[in-house]
Amino acid sequence: MISEIGMELTLNELSEVVGGAVTGDGGYVLRGVSPFETATPDDITFAGGPGYLKRLSETRAGAVIIPLAAEPGPGNYLIVENPQLAFFKILPLFHPHERESFLERSEDIGYRAFIGKSPEFGKNVFLSPGVIVGNNVKLGDGVKIYPNTVVGDDVTIGDDTVVYPNVSISSRSKIGARVIIHAGTVIGSDGFGFVPDGRKYFKINHIGFVQIDDDVEIGANNTIDRATFGKTWIKRGVKTDNLVHVAHNVVVGEDTVLVAQVGIAGSVTVGNHAILAGQAGVTGHLTIGDDVTVGPQAGIAKSVPNGLTVSGSPEMPHRQWLRVQRIIPMLPDMKKEMAAMEKRIRELEERLDKKE
Amino acid sequence: MISEIGMELTLNELSEVVGGAVTGDGGYVLRGVSPFETATPDDITFAGGPGYLKRLSETRAGAVIIPLAAEPGPGNYLIVENPQLAFFKILPLFHPHERESFLERSEDIGYRAFIGKSPEFGKNVFLSPGVIVGNNVKLGDGVKIYPNTVVGDDVTIGDDTVVYPNVSISSRSKIGARVIIHAGTVIGSDGFGFVPDGRKYFKINHIGFVQIDDDVEIGANNTIDRATFGKTWIKRGVKTDNLVHVAHNVVVGEDTVLVAQVGIAGSVTVGNHAILAGQAGVTGHLTIGDDVTVGPQAGIAKSVPNGLTVSGSPEMPHRQWLRVQRIIPMLPDMKKEMAAMEKRIRELEERLDKKE
Amino acid sequence: MISEIGMELTLNELSEVVGGAVTGDGGYVLRGVSPFETATPDDITFAGGPGYLKRLSETRAGAVIIPLAAEPGPGNYLIVENPQLAFFKILPLFHPHERESFLERSEDIGYRAFIGKSPEFGKNVFLSPGVIVGNNVKLGDGVKIYPNTVVGDDVTIGDDTVVYPNVSISSRSKIGARVIIHAGTVIGSDGFGFVPDGRKYFKINHIGFVQIDDDVEIGANNTIDRATFGKTWIKRGVKTDNLVHVAHNVVVGEDTVLVAQVGIAGSVTVGNHAILAGQAGVTGHLTIGDDVTVGPQAGIAKSVPNGLTVSGSPEMPHRQWLRVQRIIPMLPDMKKEMAAMEKRIRELEERLDKKE
Repeated sequence: MISEIGMELTLNELSEVVGGAVTGDGGYVLRGVSPFETATPDDITFAGGPGYLKRLSETRAGAVIIPLAAEPGPGNYLIVENPQLAFFKILPLFHPHERESFLERSEDIGYRAFIGKSPEFGKNVFLSPGVIVGNNVKLGDGVKIYPNTVVGDDVTIGDDTVVYPNVSISSRSKIGARVIIHAGTVIGSDGFGFVPDGRKYFKINHIGFVQIDDDVEIGANNTIDRATFGKTWIKRGVKTDNLVHVAHNVVVGEDTVLVAQVGIAGSVTVGNHAILAGQAGVTGHLTIGDDVTVGPQAGIAKSVPNGLTVSGSPEMPHRQWLRVQRIIPMLPDMKKEMAAMEKRIRELEERLDKKE
Repeated sequence: MISEIGMELTLNELSEVVGGAVTGDGGYVLRGVSPFETATPDDITFAGGPGYLKRLSETRAGAVIIPLAAEPGPGNYLIVENPQLAFFKILPLFHPHERESFLERSEDIGYRAFIGKSPEFGKNVFLSPGVIVGNNVKLGDGVKIYPNTVVGDDVTIGDDTVVYPNVSISSRSKIGARVIIHAGTVIGSDGFGFVPDGRKYFKINHIGFVQIDDDVEIGANNTIDRATFGKTWIKRGVKTDNLVHVAHNVVVGEDTVLVAQVGIAGSVTVGNHAILAGQAGVTGHLTIGDDVTVGPQAGIAKSVPNGLTVSGSPEMPHRQWLRVQRIIPMLPDMKKEMAAMEKRIRELEERLDKKE
Repeated sequence: MISEIGMELTLNELSEVVGGAVTGDGGYVLRGVSPFETATPDDITFAGGPGYLKRLSETRAGAVIIPLAAEPGPGNYLIVENPQLAFFKILPLFHPHERESFLERSEDIGYRAFIGKSPEFGKNVFLSPGVIVGNNVKLGDGVKIYPNTVVGDDVTIGDDTVVYPNVSISSRSKIGARVIIHAGTVIGSDGFGFVPDGRKYFKINHIGFVQIDDDVEIGANNTIDRATFGKTWIKRGVKTDNLVHVAHNVVVGEDTVLVAQVGIAGSVTVGNHAILAGQAGVTGHLTIGDDVTVGPQAGIAKSVPNGLTVSGSPEMPHRQWLRVQRIIPMLPDMKKEMAAMEKRIRELEERLDKKE
């Protein structure tokens, strides 16, 4: 896949960027990156697992990134500790993330965006037509906001953060640096809290806010509610997939991953470096520890200690769940077996009765 | 948390608003509200359960709202039937819900919003830049519409309703008074209906509409489809959390609560004052009775009579589900036990055979 | 329901459009369509199943569409192979899908939409205020784009495609003819892919795109991610309901149906004419065959061969799942029975021990 920006880099130049040792022709010119199967002589690719390492001769790639343990034959190789990581660090050199043409320097955008009073914008801020910004908004250097996104009063956004189209960020949200927020996401909607008043419900005004720390990526069409008091807090390095729901006063720890359609109820605390797989749900007020893994569609009904892997709804330790799941399909047979055993017991009882 | 609008009210004045008896210094001046743990002498707080009542001396709050049965020591107290309800009724006096600066009187907004023909707008209607309104739209007094929300032709919206940013309300929707619709929500998209035509599907045009009655709150990024014929109907007082799906021709009864990520298939009728917990799903054409509670992640496959609490997928009565869930993790042990029992039966049979 | 466009058609004229034989008065004038129960003498309705055919005398409809096998009494009938299909083919003649007033010919819309460089627009393209279009965008004849929708650079959209409000379509998406995309949907957001780098995650730039073929309908608030390399591919005739998630590099086969809140993880291939029921989830890299049916809330953990119907989480063949679900509620009783059996075995052993 030849670089759309015309970039050309030698194998030696690439090794300078990502480290690693070169074997073969260090002056070989590369013009793009590509997966193993579809690479051309213009591309660099990588051989991740042992399966690919056996098939090194099959790729047409001009160069292959391989791990330290590999024993390549003739050809151009970049030898590194983690080939996949090196490959995806090289990718943006040839294929930088596109910046859509409607992003314009904030100075130039004129009437096409609406900007409230007292903006504090850094250098190289890019806005788009249809962007609506409230009063007292601070945007760091290099912030990019895509069309029709709405930013409420008193919002702060850190350097180099990118906010995609049709996002709604409500008042007083605090968003860090290098954050990415995908299209359609809602940050700072009211928490879902009501006090029963007879058979009706009285709305709890949510006067807290949402804080999103540095290096977080939020997927498309997420909903992250503001806190009742204080803050809903997405800590550094968290990654959320699409259609994820995070309720009021939730805290999500550093480098934790929330896969698509996960839902976390109010006042839950999730630790660092946890993974919640797709469509999992967590009941309110629980604590999910550090390094916990929650299986897909799991329904977490009790707090989970650090390091545990759990599955099921309600959840149990993953190994136990695996054993249980092996039994579940056998239940009809077990039921029949039990009936047969009961019959044999009855016959034994009768035989013994006769003897007595 | 000192009121951002500088409001000061005495304990006596608060008792006049929410009722209840004052003990201690009725002239004590309060400047904000706060949770029990973080309150300062400027704040009023509340002690809900017995746990907090035992620890009344621990809060720094200037006054505490307590229930009738409590026996407080010295201090400033407001004694009411429901402390939590009184507290959240007092909260907006000090901390009214913020109105973002981009809301402008509809008369003043000029070219920044697009308004179709024959608008019928009440008094004090606030629109925002980027709002698009079709023909023949009626907006009641005090309606507020946030930026980039789209309102189709022939839509009616009642007094004091608030519609947050990036909402899509399609033609002929009827929305009541004091309704709140959070950001990103879609009202009146086509129902999901197709007639098989060989291996292809023929689209059913949905010519019905959506009706949302008074005092409803719809969460962020919901989808509420229009009816095939007639209406999809969200009745008075319903509250939906985020990412909720309501299909065509569904009726949701008064004061019913749909928690985050609930999905209700076409032509379902849900009664009054029901609660569907997070990620629950309901199959099409069923009836969920009044006062039903549906557990989280439950999958409702049959109609549920009034008053029942159900859990599981497919659902069963909640108590039965609790008993079942205690057994599920024991299944591998049960399987082993059965094998052991079978062996003992075989041995008994052999011993008895030998005897005969 | 009298046609809002004043359309009048005789029974004979309708038979010319959808085929079938007329009995009764072929010149009878019809002015609308309606369900069986609410039809008036101005309406045509249909009698689908045997239940309705028994009650033909009960409808007030001016004419009824009935199947070949029916034996109607006196009255006006249109006799066809598939009455439901004929009825929904007739419906748009009387009730064409509304076109909201804010859609304006692209030539006329002026400053209210933003159109980038080098647009290639066909005839009768309708845009709305607030629409933002990037550079090098191609729109086929009759394309309609609703307000506040954003279309990135280098996007292609085929003839007669309709895109509803607040949709985000990112760069290089290829969208076919006669596609419908409902409000709030996100097409072409980055796939959810990260390489572990110590305890942190390194973002994989997704340089692929999304391709949506002809006659697809995408529901409201969907998220369809772009591919890492290559394309995420929604093939001809696919229908997705609301809040559906389709991850990077997924392929969805022709005429496949994804019901509300379904989630499909990365690199899954779904065959033709499959149905995934509501809230089902599919683990990454699996293959779901042609004509597969996946039950509601199912969690697919292994590939599913052609033609199979599966249910459960993890899934099993549907018939087996039905048998299992009959046992599950009996588990507490089974546990008790086992304890009773164990006691009887022990007693037998003791009796036999005494004998020896």
